[in-house]
Amino acid sequence: MVKHSFIALAEQASKLRKSILPVKLTYKNMLRDPSQKYKAFVAPKMTKRIWPDKTIQKAPRWLSTDLRDGNQALPDPMSVAQKKEYFQKLISIGFKEIEVSFPSASQTDFDFTRYAVENAPDDVSIQCLVQSREHLIKRTVEALTGAKRATIHTYLATSDMFREIVFNMSKEEAIFKAVEATKLVRKLTKDDPSQQATRWTYEFSPECFSDTPGEFAVEICEAVKKAWEPTQENPIIFNLPATVEAASPNVYADQIEYFSTHITEREKVCIATHCHNDRGCGVAATELGILAGADRVEGCLFGNGERTGNVDLVTVAMNMYTHGVSPNLDFSDLTTISEIVQRCNKIPISPRAPYAGDLVVSAFSGSHQDAIKKGFAIQTKKQAQGETRWRIPYLPLDPKDIGRDYEAVIRVNSQSGKGGAAWVIMRSLGLDVPRSMQVDFSNTLQKNADTLGRELKSEEITKLFKETYNYNNNEHIYITLLNYEVKKLNSERRALVGQVEVNDKVVDIEGYGNGPISSLMDALSNLLNVKLSVENYSEHSLGSGSATQAASFINLSYIRKNDHATTNMWGIGVSEDTGDASIRAVFATVNNIIHFGDVLLAEQ
Amino acid sequence: MVKHSFIALAEQASKLRKSILPVKLTYKNMLRDPSQKYKAFVAPKMTKRIWPDKTIQKAPRWLSTDLRDGNQALPDPMSVAQKKEYFQKLISIGFKEIEVSFPSASQTDFDFTRYAVENAPDDVSIQCLVQSREHLIKRTVEALTGAKRATIHTYLATSDMFREIVFNMSKEEAIFKAVEATKLVRKLTKDDPSQQATRWTYEFSPECFSDTPGEFAVEICEAVKKAWEPTQENPIIFNLPATVEAASPNVYADQIEYFSTHITEREKVCIATHCHNDRGCGVAATELGILAGADRVEGCLFGNGERTGNVDLVTVAMNMYTHGVSPNLDFSDLTTISEIVQRCNKIPISPRAPYAGDLVVSAFSGSHQDAIKKGFAIQTKKQAQGETRWRIPYLPLDPKDIGRDYEAVIRVNSQSGKGGAAWVIMRSLGLDVPRSMQVDFSNTLQKNADTLGRELKSEEITKLFKETYNYNNNEHIYITLLNYEVKKLNSERRALVGQVEVNDKVVDIEGYGNGPISSLMDALSNLLNVKLSVENYSEHSLGSGSATQAASFINLSYIRKNDHATTNMWGIGVSEDTGDASIRAVFATVNNIIHFGDVLLAEQ
Repeated sequence: MVKHSFIALAEQASKLRKSILPVKLTYKNMLRDPSQKYKAFVAPKMTKRIWPDKTIQKAPRWLSTDLRDGNQALPDPMSVAQKKEYFQKLISIGFKEIEVSFPSASQTDFDFTRYAVENAPDDVSIQCLVQSREHLIKRTVEALTGAKRATIHTYLATSDMFREIVFNMSKEEAIFKAVEATKLVRKLTKDDPSQQATRWTYEFSPECFSDTPGEFAVEICEAVKKAWEPTQENPIIFNLPATVEAASPNVYADQIEYFSTHITEREKVCIATHCHNDRGCGVAATELGILAGADRVEGCLFGNGERTGNVDLVTVAMNMYTHGVSPNLDFSDLTTISEIVQRCNKIPISPRAPYAGDLVVSAFSGSHQDAIKKGFAIQTKKQAQGETRWRIPYLPLDPKDIGRDYEAVIRVNSQSGKGGAAWVIMRSLGLDVPRSMQVDFSNTLQKNADTLGRELKSEEITKLFKETYNYNNNEHIYITLLNYEVKKLNSERRALVGQVEVNDKVVDIEGYGNGPISSLMDALSNLLNVKLSVENYSEHSLGSGSATQAASFINLSYIRKNDHATTNMWGIGVSEDTGDASIRAVFATVNNIIHFGDVLLAEQ
Repeated sequence: MVKHSFIALAEQASKLRKSILPVKLTYKNMLRDPSQKYKAFVAPKMTKRIWPDKTIQKAPRWLSTDLRDGNQALPDPMSVAQKKEYFQKLISIGFKEIEVSFPSASQTDFDFTRYAVENAPDDVSIQCLVQSREHLIKRTVEALTGAKRATIHTYLATSDMFREIVFNMSKEEAIFKAVEATKLVRKLTKDDPSQQATRWTYEFSPECFSDTPGEFAVEICEAVKKAWEPTQENPIIFNLPATVEAASPNVYADQIEYFSTHITEREKVCIATHCHNDRGCGVAATELGILAGADRVEGCLFGNGERTGNVDLVTVAMNMYTHGVSPNLDFSDLTTISEIVQRCNKIPISPRAPYAGDLVVSAFSGSHQDAIKKGFAIQTKKQAQGETRWRIPYLPLDPKDIGRDYEAVIRVNSQSGKGGAAWVIMRSLGLDVPRSMQVDFSNTLQKNADTLGRELKSEEITKLFKETYNYNNNEHIYITLLNYEVKKLNSERRALVGQVEVNDKVVDIEGYGNGPISSLMDALSNLLNVKLSVENYSEHSLGSGSATQAASFINLSYIRKNDHATTNMWGIGVSEDTGDASIRAVFATVNNIIHFGDVLLAEQ
């Protein structure tokens, strides 16, 4: 489903572009001189300002308007079944206030409101939007009747532009209309003896608040508050929307602070932000709005909504962690949530969207990968000492907290450094690859990425690594050790005698050295008629407790037959026994030399 | 190409999700108590703060790092041909500073740097990034040799976390290393007599600036400045990155203001922002950074870059209009730019991305559509009076300024109101549809959208409108007027006689009334044996000058044969002659009644 919608959107976009391309840009000259066409936003003058000194200390109240504001902006709105699924998901995330519909607008919305009323947990308030008109308000109250908690949300555009262009209404007329609507809602809800089973909350939005003179916003809200008579226990909600984002987010914060410090009976008022994202600053405006006094945040998951969308609640909520505050919403299974939202909205989440995007916990740059690898190594050490704090370069959040695997973190393309691949091998095979082996592998990797013209996936890197280093002698097998015995000739000299299988024949081998490995080297040099020397050797334990194994890395030099150049080859052995691991590593390397290294295995 | 990448990404995402789903969320409990794992960001204490009182007065200097920071974060990096195309596009947009590569990292990057040096206009500075290491710096200078303008960009991570985890380096060691690198760059560039053909600029980034103590950032930059000795004419660039966005954007602004007010010789210093978007606030941090004193902005088109990307330069630039300031970058052909960037990056632009997203100038909600329609009507009137300012509800920017057509603005789905369709008809056919006809059409439209389960496209709406109202009598033709004559019987009474073609036969008609239309109604009532009455009639001119036409809308009531109910039907006629338009409208309506209205056309 998600894929289909991606394709559909791409096709739509492509058609749209084609239809647009021939348009002549007659406004181009205007664009170059915008003063003719656009006016700078005039910010309110602040005599004092306290929000920049504040920090966020607790999570706000959250309202999801996915099913109302989000849904109405979809090219292809949700089906009733999708709305129900979405509603249940919002509840499981932990939303306590959900705007579900505009029930007076259609029978479908009315019916869905009934579903929400009948299926909401007792602590969840169902919210409905309604215009300030009598018959619509009556229908809305009807839709909400019987709810444990219900919020009626009326609105009236208060900006000069809207009053003049859309409504042709004076300020006095606007106040009169808002108060009348409030009185009617009051009469039909909290003042109606038959409606006492419901906890009724009232929300009023001076629409286009951010484009409304601050004094008028306060004036109309004072009148509405007086008409409603809220209490401290059940405050009136004044939702202050940036209906169209028209100024930088500090200006919005100033406006919220102005409102918050000028409205009377502040303790009976809940201030909500409702930010749109036309300037790409919806998240910032919401956060600065909270600093400036907002108690409640309205928005949609992943920023759905008209045009650029409402503010993305996932980002605002997850950002709470950088304030050291819990959002009181559970987004730990972000993968499932993303899937549901994309399926219902039929709008893809950008690969670079904060937290939910496919690429946001990825690092492609070599230096980033190196730093992350170092960070994880230190983190592991510190965790053993009881440290729980997250402190990894380039990774502000533990990917596991958003349901992502570490595998996704480091990804390798033709520009990646060696650290990335080493990290992948560490995660997949548990091997701490020696530095010079990393350098060797990064060349192999680079060639493969260049040839493919794309990043290698973790599994591909692991597969390539195993093949390149004949991992545990499982990949390229020409000589197999059947049995062997090491004899002590004197304090410094050992002899190794044993049998190997070569080309289905059993062959005796014999060699001398100062230990088992050098004796084995000597025996194999004799067998292959090539001088093998150990250039590099390291070993580390793998896992812990009873399952501990040892991993051996060996690098052997030898003289290539065709050009007589001295070259070298790596191999890896893994075993529960340290000695056995090193012998496996030797055979892995020798077999690798036969496989890749231009050394012929003579007929025995 | 764009479509392919959408599909590829969707497939990748789907696979990734499947591979992630089985992961156990062992960190869930930690997530619910983040104080154990994440620490609140500690913001610097500001004794005074002036940025919140500032407004943006002019555009900053812009640096595009699409080809360096952007490209290195791509799962599938750009080909050399794509880099060249991208580079040329950046120049045509108006970028004067372009970071093209990390030339010491690979031969490909070195070669592309040479291409950029050889093909850049004289006023464009080519910038390269390099680590603070001698052989890499030498190679970088080599790559830039011969450029008219070149910027060498060195960096060193200065945060405590990076110094400790990644470099294991003290503050003193960091300063020493940065100064040594600066001296070497100086020796190889502006102090080298053979390098005087180039205007060399130096940029230093204290990487992770936003996580670095302010005093140390100033201290290391003072040392670097002293080593470089910049001039007022060619200032040193201190790039202050939010390498990982870790705090709200007001904190970044405080940090920039601290730096800007504490660095000495401020006139010889250019402060650049380099914001990433991990908290979704990259645009806001950049804008507040400008308020706080930044002179220059680094970023990528549409926010490409590691993880959530660098700040989106398109949004920051286009936002300048809301400050009444020209960005000095030309994004008027945003459609072509989007196409190139999506093709080269192989990452789709979100449908809700500010300015460039496919849906950002769309309105689906009925009330939004009504308001936009009213806004355009008033705008048109005011334009005739010489007003050029843009003032349309819900549309902060003229879609034409970003190369978008008005057709995309209003889109109709099952939740749209009547205003939207009326607007589409106004744009496509030039018709100002009467209000009661709008109501009638919105029902038809609603049924069609519900049946299709999706929005109707503009062309579909227009087609449906023409069919429903038998536009200009071209859709459903049963009776054709061949000729007619209107005779004046007395001052109040007219007679119409004429001939119509019905079923390939010529039939005489005759009717009486007080004017031509009522006489025609009478004649057609007789012909069809049904009583037709005019319920609603309106007409308006269409176009202007010699091409002026008239459009007539007529609504006729009649009694339905099967249930004897009185009902009505609309039709439309268009002609260069007003009288002819109304007659066409009558025939359009009558033929429509025959087509849809359960009125049989008897055999003549």
